[in-house]
Amino acid sequence: MSLLTVGTVAFDSIETPYGRVEQVIGGACTYISWAASYFQENIYLVSIIGEDFPQSELEQLKKRGVNMDGLEIVKGGKSFFWEGKYHQNMNSRDTITTELNVLADFDPVLPKEARKANFVMLGNLTPAIQAKVLDQLEGTQSLVALDTMNFWMDIALEELISVIRRIDILIINDEEARQLSGEHSLVKAAHKIFELGIKYLVIKKGEHGALLFSHDDIFFAPALPLAEVNDPTGAGDTFAGGFMGYLSASNDISMEGVKRAIIAGSAMASFCVEDFSLNRLKTLTKEEISNRLKQFKKLIHFDFID
Amino acid sequence: MSLLTVGTVAFDSIETPYGRVEQVIGGACTYISWAASYFQENIYLVSIIGEDFPQSELEQLKKRGVNMDGLEIVKGGKSFFWEGKYHQNMNSRDTITTELNVLADFDPVLPKEARKANFVMLGNLTPAIQAKVLDQLEGTQSLVALDTMNFWMDIALEELISVIRRIDILIINDEEARQLSGEHSLVKAAHKIFELGIKYLVIKKGEHGALLFSHDDIFFAPALPLAEVNDPTGAGDTFAGGFMGYLSASNDISMEGVKRAIIAGSAMASFCVEDFSLNRLKTLTKEEISNRLKQFKKLIHFDFID
Repeated sequence: MSLLTVGTVAFDSIETPYGRVEQVIGGACTYISWAASYFQENIYLVSIIGEDFPQSELEQLKKRGVNMDGLEIVKGGKSFFWEGKYHQNMNSRDTITTELNVLADFDPVLPKEARKANFVMLGNLTPAIQAKVLDQLEGTQSLVALDTMNFWMDIALEELISVIRRIDILIINDEEARQLSGEHSLVKAAHKIFELGIKYLVIKKGEHGALLFSHDDIFFAPALPLAEVNDPTGAGDTFAGGFMGYLSASNDISMEGVKRAIIAGSAMASFCVEDFSLNRLKTLTKEEISNRLKQFKKLIHFDFID
Repeated sequence: MSLLTVGTVAFDSIETPYGRVEQVIGGACTYISWAASYFQENIYLVSIIGEDFPQSELEQLKKRGVNMDGLEIVKGGKSFFWEGKYHQNMNSRDTITTELNVLADFDPVLPKEARKANFVMLGNLTPAIQAKVLDQLEGTQSLVALDTMNFWMDIALEELISVIRRIDILIINDEEARQLSGEHSLVKAAHKIFELGIKYLVIKKGEHGALLFSHDDIFFAPALPLAEVNDPTGAGDTFAGGFMGYLSASNDISMEGVKRAIIAGSAMASFCVEDFSLNRLKTLTKEEISNRLKQFKKLIHFDFID
């Protein structure tokens, strides 16, 4: 099995109540690839960067089994840059700077092998670009997941909806689900969104966990209560990466299989927020991941005696 | 086993985006007693009302096994009245009116049998009144739970803390836990609150579920995702009532036993919000409750294959 991931590879400057970092490694595709690499060894990354992006970062990803043939490096170009500042409660943040740079001209070209990937994770990008990726797939994929954001609902809703009609799993947060559906209740929101023909809907609720909907079932995955959250940046992408990494490795896309993948994604996200940038994700061991999965199991386990 | 519950029996006028009701039955002790009565048949209610409170309501509670010897009825007095209006998202509300009426002179006197109750649920009241109830217990109780609110943290923190030092389970919401501890992280908040000597801490997160902390363990109970939430009034008290009703019936105060009780409380709360006032709680069947408990189990069940 293989996983194709398309999205940003970028620089971030981040301020949280617990510190500030400048020009660190970020980007949806970076987080997705790192998180997925703990489950899946056959990953195709498709993205665009400038000449300013450190070669050593690319080497580290290659060592994790990430194929970079689809990474366009623009000579003399600058990589996408985002600067944000989190509020005291970490639940909201302000964007200080967004510099598209080379991303403005991103026109993804999938390497031949990537077109046959079994699993596809479309990170948050213009719906038109996400559609271009779908156009290049050879139709052999088992499952395509897509992340998006309210910004595209505001300015490109029609395009977004036609992309969603072509995918299998939509991964959005609670506010985005409400905006997309016009329903406050997430149960009603899911019901409406399923009219677009998807197989599964994942609604992320940050520190409150995530809901997984199939057409006729619902599953709740908690977030691990943490004493220290230093930087939430990339948590959603890490969740998606862990989720799709696990799913593509197991190749079990039944509701039970997808539930397990959601727990894997939640576990990876719980590591991500412990430190800034990809710091925590880069140092994980299999044992740490296995222990955290057990913590999730223990967190919600109860035996009900009727 | 028996359960003593102390708190308000009152009238509410409530406006939500889904309707408005005037002078309906409310009060913490009413919700607690109704919810507990589905698990525990031996309940002592201690409260105060005016002559305006309908006799038929008291008769209904008596039929559920609720002993009313500790209910003071003030001749010519008016019952406690609260009027509130919920915001569009139902997560916050404004208090329009609070009329203490007979509650202003509430000086609870426990009937002889109630002093020997095995389980005690202190609903949200002035800490001084909660202390007076504790003073009258004969010391034979297995477990005392207490609910409170930010208002008492603002104006009577010292008294509140000395009452908390005397109880076993504190039941508060996330914002109250943060205020009481001065910590944003609920894990850190729990750690600090445990310094007061309690055995368990329950942190309610409304639609996001509830966390149960013991000294060295943590359990997460989800809230059931609902399509229709018509009135959240009393949900927290219903949770506490279902929790203490189940716990007192099982008489199992181990962490595993308390986990099961949390699920029972969550199930009862999920019914409460479906309709205004006590409407839904009054019509429940054992089968409906059993089915809902199964829904909770299913909602979070997964088999992880390492």
